[in-house]
Amino acid sequence: MSESLIEQVLAGRRRAVARLITLLENDHPQAQLLLSLLYPYTGKAHLIGITGAPGTGKSTLVTELARLYRRHERTVAILAVDPTSPFSGGAILGDRIRMQALSGDAGIFIRSMANRGTPGGLSRAASDAVTVLDAAGFDIILIETVGAGQGEVEVAGTAQTIIVVEAPGLGDDIQAIKAGILEIADIFVVNKADRPGVERAIAGLRAMLELGHTAPRQTMHHGHLMQLEPPPDLVQPSAWDIPILKTMALKGEGVEPVVEAIDHHRQYLIESGELAARNRLRLAGDLERRLQTALLCQLLDNIPPEYLSDLIDKLVNRTIAPYNAVKETLEAYAP
Amino acid sequence: MSESLIEQVLAGRRRAVARLITLLENDHPQAQLLLSLLYPYTGKAHLIGITGAPGTGKSTLVTELARLYRRHERTVAILAVDPTSPFSGGAILGDRIRMQALSGDAGIFIRSMANRGTPGGLSRAASDAVTVLDAAGFDIILIETVGAGQGEVEVAGTAQTIIVVEAPGLGDDIQAIKAGILEIADIFVVNKADRPGVERAIAGLRAMLELGHTAPRQTMHHGHLMQLEPPPDLVQPSAWDIPILKTMALKGEGVEPVVEAIDHHRQYLIESGELAARNRLRLAGDLERRLQTALLCQLLDNIPPEYLSDLIDKLVNRTIAPYNAVKETLEAYAP
Repeated sequence: MSESLIEQVLAGRRRAVARLITLLENDHPQAQLLLSLLYPYTGKAHLIGITGAPGTGKSTLVTELARLYRRHERTVAILAVDPTSPFSGGAILGDRIRMQALSGDAGIFIRSMANRGTPGGLSRAASDAVTVLDAAGFDIILIETVGAGQGEVEVAGTAQTIIVVEAPGLGDDIQAIKAGILEIADIFVVNKADRPGVERAIAGLRAMLELGHTAPRQTMHHGHLMQLEPPPDLVQPSAWDIPILKTMALKGEGVEPVVEAIDHHRQYLIESGELAARNRLRLAGDLERRLQTALLCQLLDNIPPEYLSDLIDKLVNRTIAPYNAVKETLEAYAP
Repeated sequence: MSESLIEQVLAGRRRAVARLITLLENDHPQAQLLLSLLYPYTGKAHLIGITGAPGTGKSTLVTELARLYRRHERTVAILAVDPTSPFSGGAILGDRIRMQALSGDAGIFIRSMANRGTPGGLSRAASDAVTVLDAAGFDIILIETVGAGQGEVEVAGTAQTIIVVEAPGLGDDIQAIKAGILEIADIFVVNKADRPGVERAIAGLRAMLELGHTAPRQTMHHGHLMQLEPPPDLVQPSAWDIPILKTMALKGEGVEPVVEAIDHHRQYLIESGELAARNRLRLAGDLERRLQTALLCQLLDNIPPEYLSDLIDKLVNRTIAPYNAVKETLEAYAP
């Protein structure tokens, strides 16, 4: 079964792709092994992260980008990362239905991920899915994050080109949420550009860029591992001029320049050597997450359940502090 | 210095509290040790998480709750968890300024956390701060999350009473974001209740509750550790009737019933034994995060930096798969 599943994924069969992603999401015992067989065939797709505050029209933009890429005869996978629960529906379902309109086309693959599992679980699941889609030969992988929290920004931040979508006239509270994601943008898109306030939104972004407030990747934190190995190429200010583009995605207007900007950015990434640097960061972050999970599982295998239960009792009763609980546990059970 | 800092925190001195939280945020070498000295004095505060989609007026509600608690002569700490970057400002700053109006009062402490550090870093920083505030003797700790992502929901989810704030007339995209947080609510507050659509919003929540879509805690995932030790008390459906309350926080209207509902919920938690169960879950989740970080640091201490750099090269060149990279690293360097 496994070999033929791998062969089918490599041949780009959509059902096999979907099935393997499901096996990975469910932590099927063989799934990671299967994934490692695909790994040599990856590294060709261009990973595009699309993020932004709620209400900016990200999903519509993603749909229009996919449509345009198909017209250029490039195959597209869309990974929609939803922080919502399985029983939610509503708007997301609506978006998905809109996207499904695209899905008669064999050159398009659409997948939603709504993993609210272990901390970091969403990042790992998304990263695994990207590996499968890359190996399956999709030219373009669009990673759309519905949320605007730390985890979602991290997921979008693993892409090679990051598009931050804005829209005029959102509330103050939304402006605040947005602030955290502005600094990771390679391309700004001001969507819903037929709304009043669009010029003010653009002026605001321009002012921010002129103040030098976006020095993209050094502001992204990639965990303990990358602290050991700071990527020197990223310390210099980037030579990439972050464009600000206007779209009305609902009418399909202004999307072609976005595709062009993405192409230019990929060219820039390759020529400047930054593509390699970003790949290193992404793979290092992924390695760290995997190491952490593996270490914890190894440790838990050694610990009798009663010990843990007693330890948590002691924490509850305040007879041990978390700091000492960790110390004692590692001394007794770390292999 | 350390002893007197601890004494000052236990005496409720605000400057000492602020200083220790900063030491913890900055990972000062002594900070965790100091925290462990405070641990025996914790467990008295009531932890209230307040979350909801952007634009619902959470901060205003938090301010009004704090004001009311002060009138009842209870001391209040506010922990505002912002997923935004340090240079953001705007709305959050505005909220903070509004909150500062409260801060002439020695019975109120306000702290923003904007940690976008390591994965899980926000949770740990918030958890550490709660320990300090609890030991400092604050009766009420209000944990407000500005974001609506996975990480923010996790932070709010560590509280004992969780308030989910809604508002009528938010956009579709926001409705979707909201979906993931509805199921963790102990109390619903529909704020901005003078807006059109308020009855529809309430009817929507009521319908959802009747469908049994909220079975609070078993839907929250607390990681590997709690899988080993499922809390049996939480498997039964809760006897708590989730109230839906209307407020106009900006005018200070409807806030008193929210405080009453919180008190009732605390009573319920104690009498049903659920408070103990929630504390166990919270402390177990915290222990797991600490174990993971400690294990990773231990491992990295053993690994020569060149090894890591080479390994990431191999990952970049696709000559090793992440799965095998983890296996080899653990075989070579796990203690």
